[in-house]
Parts: sequence; structure tokens; C-alpha cells
Amino acid sequence: MSLNAPLGVVKRHIQRADRAATDELAKYGVATVHEAQGRIGLLQSYMRPIYPGAQVSGTAVTVLLHPGDNWMLHVVAEQIQPGDIVVAALSSPNTDGFFGDLLATSFKARGARGLIIDGGCRDIKTLKEMDFPVWSRAISAKGTIKATLGSVNIPVVCAGMIVNPGDAIVADDDGVVVVNAADVRKVADAASAREANEGEKRAKLAAGVLGLDMYNFRQPLEKLGLKYID
Amino acid sequence: MSLNAPLGVVKRHIQRADRAATDELAKYGVATVHEAQGRIGLLQSYMRPIYPGAQVSGTAVTVLLHPGDNWMLHVVAEQIQPGDIVVAALSSPNTDGFFGDLLATSFKARGARGLIIDGGCRDIKTLKEMDFPVWSRAISAKGTIKATLGSVNIPVVCAGMIVNPGDAIVADDDGVVVVNAADVRKVADAASAREANEGEKRAKLAAGVLGLDMYNFRQPLEKLGLKYID
Amino acid sequence: MSLNAPLGVVKRHIQRADRAATDELAKYGVATVHEAQGRIGLLQSYMRPIYPGAQVSGTAVTVLLHPGDNWMLHVVAEQIQPGDIVVAALSSPNTDGFFGDLLATSFKARGARGLIIDGGCRDIKTLKEMDFPVWSRAISAKGTIKATLGSVNIPVVCAGMIVNPGDAIVADDDGVVVVNAADVRKVADAASAREANEGEKRAKLAAGVLGLDMYNFRQPLEKLGLKYID
Amino acid sequence: MSLNAPLGVVKRHIQRADRAATDELAKYGVATVHEAQGRIGLLQSYMRPIYPGAQVSGTAVTVLLHPGDNWMLHVVAEQIQPGDIVVAALSSPNTDGFFGDLLATSFKARGARGLIIDGGCRDIKTLKEMDFPVWSRAISAKGTIKATLGSVNIPVVCAGMIVNPGDAIVADDDGVVVVNAADVRKVADAASAREANEGEKRAKLAAGVLGLDMYNFRQPLEKLGLKYID
Amino acid sequence: MSLNAPLGVVKRHIQRADRAATDELAKYGVATVHEAQGRIGLLQSYMRPIYPGAQVSGTAVTVLLHPGDNWMLHVVAEQIQPGDIVVAALSSPNTDGFFGDLLATSFKARGARGLIIDGGCRDIKTLKEMDFPVWSRAISAKGTIKATLGSVNIPVVCAGMIVNPGDAIVADDDGVVVVNAADVRKVADAASAREANEGEKRAKLAAGVLGLDMYNFRQPLEKLGLKYID
Amino acid sequence: MSLNAPLGVVKRHIQRADRAATDELAKYGVATVHEAQGRIGLLQSYMRPIYPGAQVSGTAVTVLLHPGDNWMLHVVAEQIQPGDIVVAALSSPNTDGFFGDLLATSFKARGARGLIIDGGCRDIKTLKEMDFPVWSRAISAKGTIKATLGSVNIPVVCAGMIVNPGDAIVADDDGVVVVNAADVRKVADAASAREANEGEKRAKLAAGVLGLDMYNFRQPLEKLGLKYID
Repeated sequence: MSLNAPLGVVKRHIQRADRAATDELAKYGVATVHEAQGRIGLLQSYMRPIYPGAQVSGTAVTVLLHPGDNWMLHVVAEQIQPGDIVVAALSSPNTDGFFGDLLATSFKARGARGLIIDGGCRDIKTLKEMDFPVWSRAISAKGTIKATLGSVNIPVVCAGMIVNPGDAIVADDDGVVVVNAADVRKVADAASAREANEGEKRAKLAAGVLGLDMYNFRQPLEKLGLKYID
Repeated sequence: MSLNAPLGVVKRHIQRADRAATDELAKYGVATVHEAQGRIGLLQSYMRPIYPGAQVSGTAVTVLLHPGDNWMLHVVAEQIQPGDIVVAALSSPNTDGFFGDLLATSFKARGARGLIIDGGCRDIKTLKEMDFPVWSRAISAKGTIKATLGSVNIPVVCAGMIVNPGDAIVADDDGVVVVNAADVRKVADAASAREANEGEKRAKLAAGVLGLDMYNFRQPLEKLGLKYID
Repeated sequence: MSLNAPLGVVKRHIQRADRAATDELAKYGVATVHEAQGRIGLLQSYMRPIYPGAQVSGTAVTVLLHPGDNWMLHVVAEQIQPGDIVVAALSSPNTDGFFGDLLATSFKARGARGLIIDGGCRDIKTLKEMDFPVWSRAISAKGTIKATLGSVNIPVVCAGMIVNPGDAIVADDDGVVVVNAADVRKVADAASAREANEGEKRAKLAAGVLGLDMYNFRQPLEKLGLKYID
Repeated sequence: MSLNAPLGVVKRHIQRADRAATDELAKYGVATVHEAQGRIGLLQSYMRPIYPGAQVSGTAVTVLLHPGDNWMLHVVAEQIQPGDIVVAALSSPNTDGFFGDLLATSFKARGARGLIIDGGCRDIKTLKEMDFPVWSRAISAKGTIKATLGSVNIPVVCAGMIVNPGDAIVADDDGVVVVNAADVRKVADAASAREANEGEKRAKLAAGVLGLDMYNFRQPLEKLGLKYID
Repeated sequence: MSLNAPLGVVKRHIQRADRAATDELAKYGVATVHEAQGRIGLLQSYMRPIYPGAQVSGTAVTVLLHPGDNWMLHVVAEQIQPGDIVVAALSSPNTDGFFGDLLATSFKARGARGLIIDGGCRDIKTLKEMDFPVWSRAISAKGTIKATLGSVNIPVVCAGMIVNPGDAIVADDDGVVVVNAADVRKVADAASAREANEGEKRAKLAAGVLGLDMYNFRQPLEKLGLKYID
Repeated sequence: MSLNAPLGVVKRHIQRADRAATDELAKYGVATVHEAQGRIGLLQSYMRPIYPGAQVSGTAVTVLLHPGDNWMLHVVAEQIQPGDIVVAALSSPNTDGFFGDLLATSFKARGARGLIIDGGCRDIKTLKEMDFPVWSRAISAKGTIKATLGSVNIPVVCAGMIVNPGDAIVADDDGVVVVNAADVRKVADAASAREANEGEKRAKLAAGVLGLDMYNFRQPLEKLGLKYID
């Protein structure tokens, strides 16, 4: 949860990250984007896709939920614009099934590309058939109530990482990474350069060149005292 | 474990839930059945299918095991009738590999539709080829011994939920839910009604209607003080 | 970590387990090999394949890493010979993404059949496409540094089990097991015998014979006091 | 949670276990009572006292709570009679701070001897000063709401064990055990006999006699093949 | 970790929360402060004091560390002013022993009142003798290196909660809570009012008045359908 | 578990580490000994003392147990010599209560100074009164059986670390560390030197000297790019 989180507030107008750059991030994937922006922005590794293979990017609309209460997911639905990814944080740890196929139908109709939720998700099979990807802390069918106000489009902490509304989100089989709205163009370019660069390295390594030589590691390792014995 | 569990007892005649109603539950799936019976009956979310896609229902035959000892799984095999699902509880937490392809062959030959075990399972690949679904706490090849008596067809606590012999079990990619033997007809009807009802809702949501409007949430949210800002 | 681990040492010449026997182990799989060698050698069950379906065996080259530092994976690459499986242990628990597609390309070019790592792994999708199997403690895109010396081809403790360089490793959907280099022929023979034996048992069980009768369990169970009630 | 749990029900009249026998159990402690009733009845070991040293027994009044909602703790307060211990179960896992010094003041005024809660507890320091012991799953200051009905004095599953209203509870630094209301006299007698018996054994062991000899373990160990080597 | 965290930056001048109000917070304790500011600001409940009994408040100086590397703790030491509490976040989960008695001696000499660290701590016994309280994720003697730059006095996510440099921290046996620098006076006043109010409630509850009556819960419970049975 | 562990073997004659050097290690404590031997030898941090304050060293006698079975603890008792510490490993993870006050009475009578067990322990209160320290994975009253052979005085893996019979063990509030039997004199001397050295550092730090200056960290930090801003 964000410390400053005003409860009971829905922010309607947020500054979304540049669309073209955000959309471009999907193809680089989570690991490359994470490296390209200086090894920051990763959500904790317990966030896993409910089915393998999805790889998406989009702009974050955020929502803060309370344990066992999914009411605000209906409130956030109205704020979704095409190209968004919903990021749901919890005020304390809970694995109930906050999200299922009905909400997914609504989110998809609004143009959402996926959901990142630091809680549980259900209707896994149907979500896969619908091709609506979710990254969650747990899979659980446990029903939730509609009783307490949270907030929409405030900064949240989701799985250990700050997400501001409008930030870019990238998610794939490796997990989830967030990119500052202001940095997406720069990060997309860095990711593109990195990928080009990796292609060359990959070819060398595939041909049998060792990282020890390609990266010039032998000298610093020797300097630190690495010894080869028989 | 059940408090009252008499150790070393096998109950041969149990009252199984109504067959037709029990069999009908599979098609509704875990989340719908859980909701249809008033949001009760779910086993803890750490119980996961060993492979995705299976969706079954059946009548519970129960067995209480001890850590590292799978002897009673051979005893329960004899009590299986076609349409049963075996529910195995442990007297204390343990993740050893209590169950593999040989026992699965035996269970299947007796007519079992699957296994729910609050411990470990092995031979995952073969079980998938055999199409014998298991929901377990862990996957582990660790071998077990045959030394201590447990019991068969007593009430057990499996993954945090009481299961009585004869209760109906539903299991799919969302997890596992148990339905009281006496309630299966009523729950199947409620699930059927719920599903019909959900079809209509799904169509509206897919057409872009918001849950906020469909469920009339705007007024209660406003009453609680939800504020929209720009 | 191994207590005796000298830090900063790379052992170049190790005694690898018999190649033919090691290669034969793959077909028996983890559960059978574990049983065949007397129920020892399993790594902890939190070690999971990053994608289902791979089943491999090979000779262990070992490496000791520090949290957040994957430098020594480049050092171990040079020591890989065709038919090896790299076993990476950590000096303290950490789930960072030590290994991805570039290192996999290098390992594969050297002839490695897979990686067992008591830490995190990334580029899951690409590794699956490359058909380079990894068994890991976690999936994480978190980047790592290159700063501290570990060691290569020393005895390590990986996921709770001692692995000596040259030991045989078997890994599949059930997990990972290690076989002493000196025992592989004996274990392969025992596994082969066990499997032949299991075929016969499987046929009986499939025909409806109960384990209670096939294994003569009724008498010892009765002697311990097992009671049948109605 | 209990499967049969009717939600929204408070049972006022329950059959409490025999008072004298229940009170006697405290002095034997959890381990002895657990053994005396045949190694059953233990709650999972994650249930820990919030401060060391308390050792109590009493009759269970039970309550079922929902995640993040402590409303029913006020409802159960009215049902407390002197000599009771409140046992609080949750409908799904949650570690919020359901209980603090105000509720403890109320519970104590009603005659409660302690609380067993499968959730979080707060005001630890004050509870210790008040000498009101709590065994909980977690310590957390997280506030809870009052929105949803649970039930009072129904059978519940608390930390993996069935507790019926009126059962005897024993709790100390080793954890928590429950004794069937019908069995407390028998279990108290067995615990007393066991303790007398243990005094004798303790004296022998303190004098240097080995358990190997005192329990006649040498022969069965040898029979199983135990070998002594130099 | 904070998304925006620039790595390798030390901010020397931060705006600390009002001293008098910050100091006043200690006496109210974590639970009361958490409630007084609207149930926000709690760090996750896995953060536990290394010894019981300490209750402190102070202004946050923050530091971002990497797994297994405590170098920046020496850097943050220079930025400590009397009345500060150091808040250490990690770039990925790790339980190594980042902090011990030497650093505590330095921190104490600089005027620090304690440490909140989302990692491990060692020299527990000496820290207790020194009366230097630490709230940590783990206790571990594992040594750390000095190799990688983190940052000092940037916003961090520590145990799931955003902490800005200069915010007020309150920590006791219940855990850790953070208060926005701008809000400390308001929160201190609210906590004071709450405590006065609680004294009155406590007296009533101690006299046997039920929360059901004191808070007027009977009517809303009945309205929701709560039923009393015999 | 050790891979090579022959099951069913008791080794009577082991080479114990030098007595004087082993005994000397206690006063340095776990953190200092761990550093003195090059940051190796620590057991995982989940191993915690059952009560605070104990600080011991001794020579390891080892035992391998199976889940839920404490039989071999009676076998190892006979092999204890004055000054030993028993190190108990498990063949798979389990938290049952393997050890209580009767076994402690026997171990103490034989001269044992404590127990390190990768499982559960019970009778906590009595063990504290007896001043018999235990470091364990869990506290649990769960009773265990006597059915399966393990081994005594074989190399084991306890909480992730190899322990050979005769090695020196040091345990305190920070955890547990093992020292190779051959290295105890050398490690004791290094620990002694380190402690002398630490006294001087402590005095400087207490006088307000910064680690940045004392360790000459400013230059390497600047070289890596650390920037101070206002």
C-alpha cells in the first residue's frame, strides 16, 4: 500500500506513458526492459502468470483493495482505456479470488490488456480461453465481498514495487516490470539497443566463444585470486 | 487431522452423496459451486493440480496418513467405488511422494476419478498420460514407508477443510471444493441457476455495460464517501 | 554451501561417472532412480522445472555462487564437457535471475544438457524454445552482478543435498536426484530391474488386483490392529 | 473453516467439557495431553504464544471470522463464561490484527483465560502486562473492519484442527491441543498416569541409563539390521 | 525498491518531520498511530524486533542495499542525525546479516535510535546489551560484501511500504509504522485523542459492559440477519 | 541428507576436533567464528534457539532421522561423550516434535551440551529450566514413532550445511556455525585476533569516527561513481 494513499478517491485523469513506446516494450520482454532501465522496477518473483506464454505491455491504471473485498475492481473498470493494464495492490496480504471471468469480460470490453494483482485470481481455465492474461500472487476460488472503499489511480505498492498510475507495465513468463511514465521512450530505445547487441553476443556464444573471453573476465578474476587446479 | 479420528479403523459402508447431482457438479466448476453453496467448502489455495485442464467431481472416500507413510493408500484402494475421489489428509505437514503411477493404476481400476492429497505426489508425467488427475500440496519423488496405521472413511481435515466420507468433491484449475453429501442436489441447482444468470451478465459486460451500473453500485459507493477527482 | 568449499578455486580435472550408465538413467526417471539407490539423493521439492516435459541425465559440474552474483557461471562454462549438467549452489538463499538465454546458448554450445540452480532463472520462454531445461528455486528477471569469487567443481550442497563434481544427475517433472559417481552402473541396473518388476505389478493392478493382496499387506495390518467396521 | 458452518448464527447454549478435568489439564501441558489422548488434537505448529511462559486450559467457545473483519469477536464476548478459552478460525488465511487490549479487557472481564486465533494479534506488550495469553498465527497491528457476519459456537477448523464448542483446550509454549469434551476425564487420568511414569523414567535417564536399554530397543534395532562399525 | 531510485546517490539535506511531534509518537505505539492516521502506513508483519520491549519513534533516513552487500550502511551512517531511525530496503529479497554490533556502535554514536531493515541482522545478544533496537526480516550471521552502490535518502519500499526520507517511524513489539513527514503533528494529536478515548472504553469493558452495547452493534448485526439459537 | 549416507549404520569411533580449541570457540560466538573461517559454515537462518541467551560450542555427533520418527535419537545418545553437541538431520522436511525433556535428560547425563535439529522440538519450558539449549526448525508437540533405521556419525546435511562427525559446532542467538575438525585451532586463533581487532574498531566508532574513514571507503565509492547531492 502507498503511505499517502487517500482512501475513497478515484482519479479520473491520469497522464499515461507514451503509447507507441509503451506498446514497443512488449516485444523486448521483462528481463530486457529491467536491464535496459538499470536493473530496477521488478515486482517480486511470487507474481506468476496464471497460464504460460502471454507477453504484454500497457499503461497502468492502479487500484487499492482490502483483504477479501473486490468492490473497487468494478470502480477501476470505468477508468480503463484501451491499452491499459490494471495493477491491483492490497492493504494487507490476502490470497482470496478477487478476479474472475465476469470482471475479465468487463475489463476486456474496456480495452484492458491484462491484470497484475497482489492477491488471488479464479476462473483460470476461462481466462485462458478468453486470452486475458493475469499475473497474480495466488490462484484461489474464494469469493470476496463488496464493503469497503479503496482508491483508484493513486500510487500503490504492488508486490514490493511502487507503481504510479500511467506508468508502463511489461509482463511475461519471467514476471512483471514497471517503467516510469517519463522514461518509456528512453527505456524502449535502450532495450532495442540491448537486444541488437545481444544478438551478436548470442551468435558468438553459440559458436563456442566463452563469456570469459568475450567479456574479458579472465584478468579481473585472476586479479581477485581465482586459481585453477587439477 | 480430525480430532475424533479413531486410528486404525476402516469404515466400509458410507453414505455417498447423490450420484447424479454429484456428477453434475463437475461442469459448473469449483468457483461456481463454492459461490452456489454460500462461499464455503474451499480447500486452501496451496492445493494445486499436477497438470492443467482436469475438471472432475465425485464422492469422497477419505484416508488419514502419517508423515512419510503411504500404507493406508493401499487400504483405501479397496474401499473405492466407481465415481469416487480419494481425499488423503495427513496427521502433520509433510511433502513426501505418497502417490505415484502404480497406485494410480490401482485407483483407476477401482473407478476413482482422482486424488486430493495434502502431501506430495510423484510420477507426474505418467499420471498426465494416464489422465488421472491429482491435486496436491507438493510434487516430490521422496519414497514413503509402510509402518503405521491411519484410518479410512473417517472425517478428516484436508488442507484446512473438513471432509466427511461421502461428501461431494469438485476440483479443477481453480482448486478444490467440498459439498456436504446432504446438500448436493440443492447446490447443483443453485450452481445451475447461477450459471444461467452469469451468461446474461457476461453478455452485458462484453457489450461494455459497467458492473457499477449493472449491479447498482454507484449509490452505495457514493454514500460511503467515494469521491471522483481530476 | 559445502563447509570445505575453498573459495576462488576452479578444479579442471574431475572424475566423471560412467557415461553409458549415466546416460541410461534418464529413461528411468527421478522416482525410479531415487528408489533404486535406496531412497536417497533427492534435492528438496522446491526445485521445479521451468517448463514441463524435460527428462535428462548427465554428469555434474558444480559451481558455488553468492547471492546476486552470477560471475562464476561464466567460469564454469569453460569446464563443461558434452554430457554434463551444471549444478549451481548458493552461499545463502537468494532468488535473483542468475541464468538466462545468453548463458544457456554458451552452456549448450559446450555440450551441457541442462542446469540445476538453487536460485532464480529468467528468459523462460526462450529457454523453452531452445529446449534447454533448467530446474530452479524461482523464476526471476532480477539482474545479477559480477564481483565475488566462488568456486567450480568443489562438493556443494544444492537444495539440501550434497553434489560432488562428476556425480550423475537425473531430472524430470518429479524433481532432481543425484547418484554417486561410483554407483551409477549399479543404480542403473537396479532401476532397470525395478522397472521390469513394475511393469508386472502395473498389469496386475490394472486388472483390479489390490495392493493389499499383491504385497501381502493384510496380515501385518491386522496384526497392528487395523479394524474394519460397517 | 467448517464445511457445515451456517453463517450468521450464534449458539448460546453449548455443552462444556467437565470443569474439574478441564482445569486439571493445564498442569500436564500440551505435549503430555497430546500423547495421553493418542497423539491427536494438535493445532499446526505456526500457532505461537505472543509471550513465553503462559500455560492454560479451558473450555472452547468458537467463532468464525472473515479476513480483515473482527466484528464477531464482539459477538463471541457475550457467550464467554468463566473458564472459557476463545478459539477463532478464519474463512481464509489472513494475518491482520483482529485482537488487541480492548477486546482482551472485555474477554478477561467475562472470565476468559486466553485466545487461540488463526490470524494476527496486536498490543502484545499490554497483553503481556495484563497477563492475557494469546496463541496466534501472526503479530500485526493492522486494523480490521466490522462488516460481515460469521458465526459463534459452531464447529470450526482452527490451524488445521477441528474444534467443537465445549471441547477442552490446552495451550503452552509448545503450542495448542484440543481434547474432545467427552474425553477430558479419561485424558486427564491418562496424562496423570503418563506423568507419574515419566518421573521414574526421567530419574533413570538422569542416572545414565540409556533409552536403548530402558525401552528394550536394542533387539528390534538389530533385527532391522542396525550395524555398529568402528 | 523504489522505481525511481537513482542508484549511487546520497542526498545530504532532507526535510525531517517535526521533532516534538515525532518524539511524542513513541508513547502511543504502533497500533494506535496506525489507527490514528486512518489504518495506513504499516510495514509487513514479518518485520519483527530482535528482542522484545523496545518502543521508539524517530525520523527516517533511508538506504537502498543490494543482496549480500552492506556497503551503503557505512555511507548512511554519515547522514544520521540525533533522533533518526535508519530504514534499509533491499533491491531483492535476501536474509544475510547486513548489520551487527560494530555498525550499531557507529549508528548509536551518531544519534540513531534504531534500525528497520528488510534483511538480516546479527550480534543479537550484544545489540540487546547495547539497547540498540532493530526490526528485521531475519536473524542471520551471514557476512556481507562491499561491492555495489545503492543510494541514501531516496524514497524506498521497505517491507511493502513506501518510506520517504524524513518521514516519522514508530516501532514496538507490534511491528513498524511510518507517518508522512507532513502529517506527524496531526497524527500525534489524533493518537492522543484516541488514547484518551480508549481509557474510557477500557474502564467500561473492564466493568463488564459488552462491546455489543458500547458500540451499538446489536442493531446492525440483527439487520444483517444474525440469529441467536439455543 | 547426505548422498552417501549408508542407512542403518552407527559409527562408534570418530575423530573429534581438538577439545581446547573447540571449547574456546563458544566465547567468540557464531558471527565471529563464521567470519574468522572465511564466511563459511553457517546453517540456514531458520534454525532458531528455543530460548534466548545460550552460547555453546562442542564436537558434533551426527544422526540422520526420517520424518515423524525419532528412534535414532536413542541410538545416538549412547555415542555422546562429554563436550559433544548432537546434530540431527532429516531425510525430508518435517516439523514434528522429535525431542523433549526425557531425551534431554539422557543427553545431558551423557555430557551433551545441546542439540541442533532440522526438525521440531517440544517441552520448551522444561528444557529452559534444565538449561539444555536446542536450535531447531520448529517448536511442535507432535509425537513421533520408532520404526525406521537412520544412521549415526555419518556426514549429514543439516539446514543446508554439511556436518561431519567430529566437527566443531558453535551456536548462539545468531544461529549455528560448523567448523571443520581440522581447522578449529586455526579458526579459534583467527577469531581471537579478529575480536582483539574489533575492540579497537569499536572504540573508534563509539567516539564518532565513521566507517567511511576508518575503512577508507570514500575513494573506492567515489571511483564507482557515488554522488552527493543536496
